[in-house]
Amino acid sequence: MAGEEPRIDPWGTLEVKDYKRLMEVFGIKPIETVFPLLEKAGMKPSVHMRRGIVFGHRDLDRVLEARARGERVAVLTGFMPSGRFHFGHKLTVDQLIYYQRNGFKVFVAIADAEASIVRRIPRREAVRIGVEEYIANMIALGLDPDKTEFYFQTARGTPYYRLAQLFAGKVTAAEMEAIYGDLSPAKIMAALTQAADILHVQLDEYGGYKYVVVPVGADQDPHLRLTRDLADRMGGIIELERPASTYHKMQRGLDGAKMSSSRPDSTIFLTDPLPEARRKLMRALTGGRATAEEQRRLGGVPEACTVYDMDMYHLMSDEELAKIYRDCRSGSILCGECKLIAWERMKALMEEHGSRLEEARKIAWSVVETPRF
Amino acid sequence: MAGEEPRIDPWGTLEVKDYKRLMEVFGIKPIETVFPLLEKAGMKPSVHMRRGIVFGHRDLDRVLEARARGERVAVLTGFMPSGRFHFGHKLTVDQLIYYQRNGFKVFVAIADAEASIVRRIPRREAVRIGVEEYIANMIALGLDPDKTEFYFQTARGTPYYRLAQLFAGKVTAAEMEAIYGDLSPAKIMAALTQAADILHVQLDEYGGYKYVVVPVGADQDPHLRLTRDLADRMGGIIELERPASTYHKMQRGLDGAKMSSSRPDSTIFLTDPLPEARRKLMRALTGGRATAEEQRRLGGVPEACTVYDMDMYHLMSDEELAKIYRDCRSGSILCGECKLIAWERMKALMEEHGSRLEEARKIAWSVVETPRF
Repeated sequence: MAGEEPRIDPWGTLEVKDYKRLMEVFGIKPIETVFPLLEKAGMKPSVHMRRGIVFGHRDLDRVLEARARGERVAVLTGFMPSGRFHFGHKLTVDQLIYYQRNGFKVFVAIADAEASIVRRIPRREAVRIGVEEYIANMIALGLDPDKTEFYFQTARGTPYYRLAQLFAGKVTAAEMEAIYGDLSPAKIMAALTQAADILHVQLDEYGGYKYVVVPVGADQDPHLRLTRDLADRMGGIIELERPASTYHKMQRGLDGAKMSSSRPDSTIFLTDPLPEARRKLMRALTGGRATAEEQRRLGGVPEACTVYDMDMYHLMSDEELAKIYRDCRSGSILCGECKLIAWERMKALMEEHGSRLEEARKIAWSVVETPRF
Repeated sequence: MAGEEPRIDPWGTLEVKDYKRLMEVFGIKPIETVFPLLEKAGMKPSVHMRRGIVFGHRDLDRVLEARARGERVAVLTGFMPSGRFHFGHKLTVDQLIYYQRNGFKVFVAIADAEASIVRRIPRREAVRIGVEEYIANMIALGLDPDKTEFYFQTARGTPYYRLAQLFAGKVTAAEMEAIYGDLSPAKIMAALTQAADILHVQLDEYGGYKYVVVPVGADQDPHLRLTRDLADRMGGIIELERPASTYHKMQRGLDGAKMSSSRPDSTIFLTDPLPEARRKLMRALTGGRATAEEQRRLGGVPEACTVYDMDMYHLMSDEELAKIYRDCRSGSILCGECKLIAWERMKALMEEHGSRLEEARKIAWSVVETPRF
């Protein structure tokens, strides 16, 4: 079977099947629809867009048109400062870097308000994690701190808080309940603060960025819809544009379930000691068959393989990935060997990251204003 | 019957009957319990304390002891900037002036956040009312703007907002529901903001006033209890003292029901044209009998008289009030005549207020920072 062309394409694990409803019901458009506009704006699709990991968008066309007209544009995301920085986070940071290198201003919220009031993470710990884990790793990955505005939610200033306060008058308990389940004052405050994160950069005080894209996992769309509604409802008080958004598929954990810091074997942290990272990768769930013989005969199933996910999300060029895909499907490579190839790539990546991280940690505290309390 | 001593004292309308449960169940103490401490702190009971209008307190003893030790003390209240300034508001302002003249720092919150998100009063209107109605009238009544910190909730700055945000993590939906009824994000935000009003003056940024008394109507106690609980629960994050509070009886409206801006005939606004004010007072509900003959025979009932309330809350000295009480009870004065006496006092008060108000309005905008949005 060697050399036989695969019947489905190498990005097949990421077919937009599961996300169809989201796209049909809520008007999210396939990411390919902006490819001509990207070109017009002097950009190329990102690797994640090409691979369908970033599969959909809402209003990204408006942002790209603005950029093509020469207007200032921005990208914004937020991280909850809990646990350690892992490859799931890297997916988002890679997207930020992509936009940054294409002239977008980058805003990164450290959601320490949410961490402390909803998750009850001690304040000082949330700040330390925010700086030493999140900001440091982002810089080490290549996000340029000179062109990035990192901020703690709890140190963002009056106009930002004011937005959250005003939003409180523009949404009902029922609307919030539909998104956040059983409500508590903490959840409501966190949700309103998150909406302020997305919209406040439009205020003059924060640069007046009217065209903002927010890259999120597909499960985050309800928050985005609420934020869009809030932008609309502020009319007459402050004119706010709706934020654009892109949607990516969440990388599965190494056990095939959800990737989560709370199950350390489900993911690899970028600061894992190499032997630890290797151990996790070697134990990862693959799309291999029950026996070597069977696999040589039938080929593996990369679509079911979390190592293949890692290759596709983080480790390989298009060419390398296409080769692995063919070799797996054809049965010419077995899982052990394939994992070793992935590990070589990951080891190199982590080693380089480790040395950059050392430098990044030296400056991380200086690139962000830390909260008073 | 002339000259006969009244069977009950002239402040009888304000017997602590209705408030007994509040005092027993929630540990509010009779205001008389602080009279010795007032003396120790070099103060005398206010006229409202003497008359039992301010009938109870919680922890005022701690504030007075602090003042006697030479520590800085403060008094704080808030006004919703809706409608016009009337004699009901004056009751609270008179208390502020009493504390101010006794060396307390005064903070006055203009609750424009609540006005806009809960009551949906247009932003600009809330600001205008806050300055031209509330602040101007307070200054005209004698509150010294140089010793008063007036502020709009929506222009108060980061540490203040931060408190409200943190409080969100320290209270459950059930606790809030018990106080505020059906919850909405707007109500929750307003309640947390109100708690921040009371507690934020303890922060260094706002002067670090640890001993604060909040004069409120008896119906406001649930808010105070919540605020005390929040202060306790912040331990480990920020050390906050529980606020002290005093409780006053709400002045009834001129129709005997609740005094309210929304029923203009229930109260007299300090800016009412004199003929208008006179008309309202002349039509006010009294404790008179069905006929003049009956009243001469049985005497009137000052306890049921809203004109007598006005005399007691605002218009008369102790001696004058005692005389009116005797004359009414004895039947030696009828309601028409009594109203005219009250009107003479009120007319003088309003004329003087009117001329002071003209001056006060000239400076009102300059004594407060107005919100950006």
